[in-house]
Amino acid sequence: MSLNTFGHLFRVTTWGESHGPALGATVDGCPPGVPIDEAALQRWLDLRKPGQNKYTTQRREPDAVKILSGVFEGQTTGTPVQLMIENTDQRSKDYSEIAAKFRPGHADITYFQKYGIRDYRGGGRSSARETAARVAAGGLARAALAELAPGLHITGYMVQMGPQGIDRSRFDWDEIARNPFWCPDAEAAEGWADYLDGLRKSGDSVGAVIEVTARGVPAGLGAPIYGKLDTDLAAAMMSINAVKAVEIGEGMAAATLTGSENADEITMGPDGPVYSSNHAGGILGGISTGQDVVVRFAVKPTSSILTPRRTLTVSGEETEIVTKGRHDPCVGIRAVPVGEAMMACVILDHLLLHRGQVGANRGHIG
Amino acid sequence: MSLNTFGHLFRVTTWGESHGPALGATVDGCPPGVPIDEAALQRWLDLRKPGQNKYTTQRREPDAVKILSGVFEGQTTGTPVQLMIENTDQRSKDYSEIAAKFRPGHADITYFQKYGIRDYRGGGRSSARETAARVAAGGLARAALAELAPGLHITGYMVQMGPQGIDRSRFDWDEIARNPFWCPDAEAAEGWADYLDGLRKSGDSVGAVIEVTARGVPAGLGAPIYGKLDTDLAAAMMSINAVKAVEIGEGMAAATLTGSENADEITMGPDGPVYSSNHAGGILGGISTGQDVVVRFAVKPTSSILTPRRTLTVSGEETEIVTKGRHDPCVGIRAVPVGEAMMACVILDHLLLHRGQVGANRGHIG
Amino acid sequence: MSLNTFGHLFRVTTWGESHGPALGATVDGCPPGVPIDEAALQRWLDLRKPGQNKYTTQRREPDAVKILSGVFEGQTTGTPVQLMIENTDQRSKDYSEIAAKFRPGHADITYFQKYGIRDYRGGGRSSARETAARVAAGGLARAALAELAPGLHITGYMVQMGPQGIDRSRFDWDEIARNPFWCPDAEAAEGWADYLDGLRKSGDSVGAVIEVTARGVPAGLGAPIYGKLDTDLAAAMMSINAVKAVEIGEGMAAATLTGSENADEITMGPDGPVYSSNHAGGILGGISTGQDVVVRFAVKPTSSILTPRRTLTVSGEETEIVTKGRHDPCVGIRAVPVGEAMMACVILDHLLLHRGQVGANRGHIG
Amino acid sequence: MSLNTFGHLFRVTTWGESHGPALGATVDGCPPGVPIDEAALQRWLDLRKPGQNKYTTQRREPDAVKILSGVFEGQTTGTPVQLMIENTDQRSKDYSEIAAKFRPGHADITYFQKYGIRDYRGGGRSSARETAARVAAGGLARAALAELAPGLHITGYMVQMGPQGIDRSRFDWDEIARNPFWCPDAEAAEGWADYLDGLRKSGDSVGAVIEVTARGVPAGLGAPIYGKLDTDLAAAMMSINAVKAVEIGEGMAAATLTGSENADEITMGPDGPVYSSNHAGGILGGISTGQDVVVRFAVKPTSSILTPRRTLTVSGEETEIVTKGRHDPCVGIRAVPVGEAMMACVILDHLLLHRGQVGANRGHIG
Repeated sequence: MSLNTFGHLFRVTTWGESHGPALGATVDGCPPGVPIDEAALQRWLDLRKPGQNKYTTQRREPDAVKILSGVFEGQTTGTPVQLMIENTDQRSKDYSEIAAKFRPGHADITYFQKYGIRDYRGGGRSSARETAARVAAGGLARAALAELAPGLHITGYMVQMGPQGIDRSRFDWDEIARNPFWCPDAEAAEGWADYLDGLRKSGDSVGAVIEVTARGVPAGLGAPIYGKLDTDLAAAMMSINAVKAVEIGEGMAAATLTGSENADEITMGPDGPVYSSNHAGGILGGISTGQDVVVRFAVKPTSSILTPRRTLTVSGEETEIVTKGRHDPCVGIRAVPVGEAMMACVILDHLLLHRGQVGANRGHIG
Repeated sequence: MSLNTFGHLFRVTTWGESHGPALGATVDGCPPGVPIDEAALQRWLDLRKPGQNKYTTQRREPDAVKILSGVFEGQTTGTPVQLMIENTDQRSKDYSEIAAKFRPGHADITYFQKYGIRDYRGGGRSSARETAARVAAGGLARAALAELAPGLHITGYMVQMGPQGIDRSRFDWDEIARNPFWCPDAEAAEGWADYLDGLRKSGDSVGAVIEVTARGVPAGLGAPIYGKLDTDLAAAMMSINAVKAVEIGEGMAAATLTGSENADEITMGPDGPVYSSNHAGGILGGISTGQDVVVRFAVKPTSSILTPRRTLTVSGEETEIVTKGRHDPCVGIRAVPVGEAMMACVILDHLLLHRGQVGANRGHIG
Repeated sequence: MSLNTFGHLFRVTTWGESHGPALGATVDGCPPGVPIDEAALQRWLDLRKPGQNKYTTQRREPDAVKILSGVFEGQTTGTPVQLMIENTDQRSKDYSEIAAKFRPGHADITYFQKYGIRDYRGGGRSSARETAARVAAGGLARAALAELAPGLHITGYMVQMGPQGIDRSRFDWDEIARNPFWCPDAEAAEGWADYLDGLRKSGDSVGAVIEVTARGVPAGLGAPIYGKLDTDLAAAMMSINAVKAVEIGEGMAAATLTGSENADEITMGPDGPVYSSNHAGGILGGISTGQDVVVRFAVKPTSSILTPRRTLTVSGEETEIVTKGRHDPCVGIRAVPVGEAMMACVILDHLLLHRGQVGANRGHIG
Repeated sequence: MSLNTFGHLFRVTTWGESHGPALGATVDGCPPGVPIDEAALQRWLDLRKPGQNKYTTQRREPDAVKILSGVFEGQTTGTPVQLMIENTDQRSKDYSEIAAKFRPGHADITYFQKYGIRDYRGGGRSSARETAARVAAGGLARAALAELAPGLHITGYMVQMGPQGIDRSRFDWDEIARNPFWCPDAEAAEGWADYLDGLRKSGDSVGAVIEVTARGVPAGLGAPIYGKLDTDLAAAMMSINAVKAVEIGEGMAAATLTGSENADEITMGPDGPVYSSNHAGGILGGISTGQDVVVRFAVKPTSSILTPRRTLTVSGEETEIVTKGRHDPCVGIRAVPVGEAMMACVILDHLLLHRGQVGANRGHIG
């Protein structure tokens, strides 16, 4: 069984394989009256697009998104929005190497074990290309958020590449767009560039940690107990290819703190409660506090590398594999816009859930 | 809006507050013909029960589970199973301190902001007591798994308390049940005992990391893309009170590895593929590989501590709070059986999804 | 597999068997701040309660509903509301006749074929007793509607018993509560009384048609395409035991009309559009028009009758069966409050869906 | 809010407007390994295609379906199947008449009231053109059923046009494909032809009743209580444009029968239980009996007629409307393949639900 839909009210179903005619996202539940056109969505896809610099795969696709339904005279109608991206760079490649072998650390083997189908063309649904559809849907979510919550901003950035993390004291929001790694620390970015050059030459790859922050999230979003804001964010981020961990606020480090260190104290500000710190990552009991919502996720290194690895053929014989082709030494780079897109979808979904609530925001403090 | 149901086919809806008449779990989708009775469920609840040693809250409740429906002549009928636990220790406590104040780091404030209702009696749905219902439902899931996948074993244990982690070289499965911390490392457990004694006396609390391992999980479980096995496990664990991070396999550390270090090589064993290591935590592309499924989650320290903290009253005035009462210095201890229960529910759910699949396990290797 | 949950945002899960310890409804998604107590719910249950007159089963149960969660200080908190009804009249009856035989026209045989379990005690989940839980949940829905849509009224009544329909020219809303059949036509009610007396004496049963009207439903409710208001009403009514058909507005008779006869013309009234007629039953394109929402459903005669019928034993041998016991000659009578309850749940659910919509009711006419 | 997805495990999301670039169906949950290609789907679309004879709209579209994903080397892979139909006949028509006026009996007014958007181009999502996507998805469901339940056959036919019903004694399965009305009674078909000629000339329209029969459905399908087979069929059929009533088996007539007349007696046949009649329509307690599953639904006459009708303009002024254009005098004709498609989707969905059930079909009789 497959479950390709995400969200409660803003429901995104992604579809399509990397080497079929097209892929896309069917978005149901988008509010009516949201101004949108293809150019506005394309802006986000272009950020994710591979082949933009030497650190990402050289597969070059225009990744042009088409709106097939749900928009009339420049605004959404409240009916399903179909976003399609045609695959144009399906070069008749030599698949003989991977067609008959399972790449270690890749979903090749489990998809075969589950479905009994060997769609060797680039990984099918397990390809990172599926995330293009998420970015398109995320663009629509952002357009809706711009209408519903104008002060809300979502920004993703990389905080660690391999063993090298950023220095938080050098954190600069404006730096993020200036380097190819979405890194808020210019100095760290330089170190990463050198490191990645070396990796690329050796045909190896490396993991990364991405952080996504949503500023301006109103208090009260989240649907306890099993639709908590952090629960849905954890699911959203973990569903991205190659993600192996998700943290909210203090994350794993929360385990090392005492209660007196961890709890964010509350005082009264001009516009409501003010917190002394944000260990909580903007979420208490699964509900937003009004502080920044902060999520991090770890992306493992891609398993498509030039180093020979032991593996099996489809018929179960032991062999070795070397994965040639156009792959990313650090797929985490391209995961940044994807993380932003998932954050946008989750926040919009919970904003819609919250709006429907009778007595929403009745609990005014001060 | 609240969303109190978890699962696709094995659907658990927990209900009830810590200080109402009762709480429980409505379980829909349990297969028929599973042998079950109250004693079998009680066994798991007794493990979670507070007041068992000096390291957990002294609130003493029998936590006796009753089966109200869905079972006839000792086996499930395929209809909803209602599991109820009556609250018996609702002592008429002095709530005056917390009734008018929000505990920092607690869901008090966000529940009020969301619902406009101040149910000050022990936290309502945000109380850890909700997890008793999960443990009961998890007991039912285990009973079903015992029928469907006899060789499958789920074990939870604590691998870190505050700053002190276990030494993996001393890992001993048999040790887990021997100490009050579910710790697989006897030496670490001794250190934790001392550390926790100190914390308890000072009225403070501390976080922890729990790991849950499922052995004997068949290959092929998981429903890509948004119902991946790891996606659902991330949601399951993040939905537990006080959890701030979830890791699969290598987890956050995957970010630090290279592709050649991280990918688990595959060779052929007598019963199918054998992996050289388990960085993946038993899941590739969201689908189980047949290796151990390994999940970790971080539990933050409870915010109910004796140290005075700045906070607000319900009417928005600044004040200080000291939370007296029967609280746990390390709530992570009691999260161990809860993590096991969530693992059992997720695995059973995916086993049921997989069984319905046409051509399930067609992809036989070797 | 069983699916015991109904609704999108106002989600009702009914549970329990007629002869177990209890049955009830787990209601998730009820808005916070709705005034409710057990007495307010009991009022609706008492209307449905059997044994009130000679035309319904003489099984006498107090059917006392208890609120176990989700209500604090007289109002809902936004968390799940657990409504429990204990079974008290489980007399140790002689089941030998039906324990080994399948009642023709009854779910006995299909439940056994599906689940492999023979819960002969009164039909288990297929018993009409399950509808008590619906009525309780419907009472909660009505309480929420009283807050959200004060002018909205839901009324059910019987329009046909066996071959005898009402005369619409004698329709009197006030008459409905005056006779044991919820009949709006006093004269028809008299005829039915005589007819039913005869049936009861002969040990036979008969079908009926119930109509439920919701007045004061705002325009705009309904979620096209597969959550249309009429789609959800059809599912709601068809899910009631013994229902074999559902009609909206003109219903089956719409097939016999021409387009010029069927379309309701529109003129402008002081408060918005006014329709010349209501063939549509208050729903166009799955969305409410603001007219009365009118639903009818046919209830088949109960199969538990004294007339001997050919059937099989559980082991497949041919036999005859006579169903003694406390059964209703016209179960349709007790279906009236159930139909009202389902209407209340569906309307509330769609009101909540609609409230969350951005730009809801933007399309103001005139 | 809109809800454009139907089904539990076999989930169909239809999307697209009649006058946008394309429409289609995103099908998630289709089993892997089902042989399918575009030609196999096209066969069903061609049956539904308008413009085939003088009794249906003269809008001529090739309605060519494309498979964009989920199929590899001629069989489904278990991933989402995207079925797209491009709109080719979007002639630049004069919409001035309907752009500013609401058609009585049409969803024009309610869509505007709900969404605040006036998509006047042919009705948008409320257009019958949406049903092309259902037929495509139904084709895929049939292909899966051909693999899973080879002896299962689904046939739709018209049993009433306006006031004229068929004579059941002349029922001939082979006749259905021979006349333009899918009528199993050749004599009735002739009468309908004359009647419809007259209606078409006068610019009026008429309703119809469609019956769909599924033969060879195994016993045990259906998921009580709110996912009963008849509940889901009622929702499926009621969600089709213009449908105002749904009947199972005896339908509304069940109300007129006594218990001794209505219950189908059971005897033992060589392959299991045999029923003396089929008043139940193949469903007891929401679960299939193994008999023919029989559903009927009433289609109202289209409101797009030449007769002048009173209505409002978008700005609320009273006016008259005459709907010119390419419309069907009896839209019920084109609803036949749509009803078949919905039956196929529902049966497949329940077959998949049932397969996953532990102990499915354990209840063997005889």
